[in-house]
Amino acid sequence: MAHTIKEKSKLLARVRRLKGQAEAVERALEAELGCSDVLMLVASMRGAINGLTAELMEDHIRHHVVNPDNDPDSDRARGAAELIEVVRTYMK
Amino acid sequence: MAHTIKEKSKLLARVRRLKGQAEAVERALEAELGCSDVLMLVASMRGAINGLTAELMEDHIRHHVVNPDNDPDSDRARGAAELIEVVRTYMK
Amino acid sequence: MAHTIKEKSKLLARVRRLKGQAEAVERALEAELGCSDVLMLVASMRGAINGLTAELMEDHIRHHVVNPDNDPDSDRARGAAELIEVVRTYMK
Amino acid sequence: MAHTIKEKSKLLARVRRLKGQAEAVERALEAELGCSDVLMLVASMRGAINGLTAELMEDHIRHHVVNPDNDPDSDRARGAAELIEVVRTYMK
Repeated sequence: MAHTIKEKSKLLARVRRLKGQAEAVERALEAELGCSDVLMLVASMRGAINGLTAELMEDHIRHHVVNPDNDPDSDRARGAAELIEVVRTYMK
Repeated sequence: MAHTIKEKSKLLARVRRLKGQAEAVERALEAELGCSDVLMLVASMRGAINGLTAELMEDHIRHHVVNPDNDPDSDRARGAAELIEVVRTYMK
Repeated sequence: MAHTIKEKSKLLARVRRLKGQAEAVERALEAELGCSDVLMLVASMRGAINGLTAELMEDHIRHHVVNPDNDPDSDRARGAAELIEVVRTYMK
Repeated sequence: MAHTIKEKSKLLARVRRLKGQAEAVERALEAELGCSDVLMLVASMRGAINGLTAELMEDHIRHHVVNPDNDPDSDRARGAAELIEVVRTYMK
């Protein structure tokens, strides 16, 4: 992984939030909260995982395949920019 | 939530495993493991969340809507059993 | 299936739109449109399938398990209403 | 899109199968088949869409970003091969 320091701290913030969400689900189960409340918490974890996945894929494309910001008029930079766009759409 | 004790401990085991997976992703990011390794860890979290969701929905159907094991020859028991089957298929 | 006539025509309209979307993807591939344009069309099909799934599940719950509009103050009507809410959230 | 002829005919076969699946869902609704049968048909369409998406993304990576088969020992070829692997895992 060759994340920049800024990307790394964003990713760490995301994954710590995910851990916090797992703990909230754990507490909700222990407190015997309603099923549908627990399910809504779990649905928000799923959204957070999709967001984390999209960000990891984007960083991977930028640092290990082609960074669309370098030589932005080349075909491959355009291809990488489109790919990042597609990944974001799919992971929403 | 009106889970049986057995269901509750299964759900808690699932959510603690999820928390452990989030911690593994956190350590992988801190150790600057390869992107694709981190992405595979995150993919397994997504699978775990789908499994937890399916189990919560199934428990909700059994305890708050219709338990297909009670009066199993009734139309509504058959409908609930089919619904549980569909939920399992979709969350796989 | 015991859909009302109104539900059936809504479902048929959805599935015909899906068929139209598949034909648009086919034409886009034949015309050698850009990959990312084709991917966006396919992403919109995925959204349409999720919407169709949610509607089919909701109809199944109403007609084959418990209709939350009948006897709405009962526990099982409340459970069915919550379940429909959860299905809608998950399929969005 | 710069698909090879072979890729193009594979993609067209996939999308035509999808159209056929939409027609099967349409007939099942018209024939008032059971909800859960219709839902299983729709679930198989969702699987087919994920497969089509993965193949389109892979072709896009190969033809518009980096083809991992060209210069396979370079870092960027390795990065592209890993990305294709990740896309396949996520779209399963």
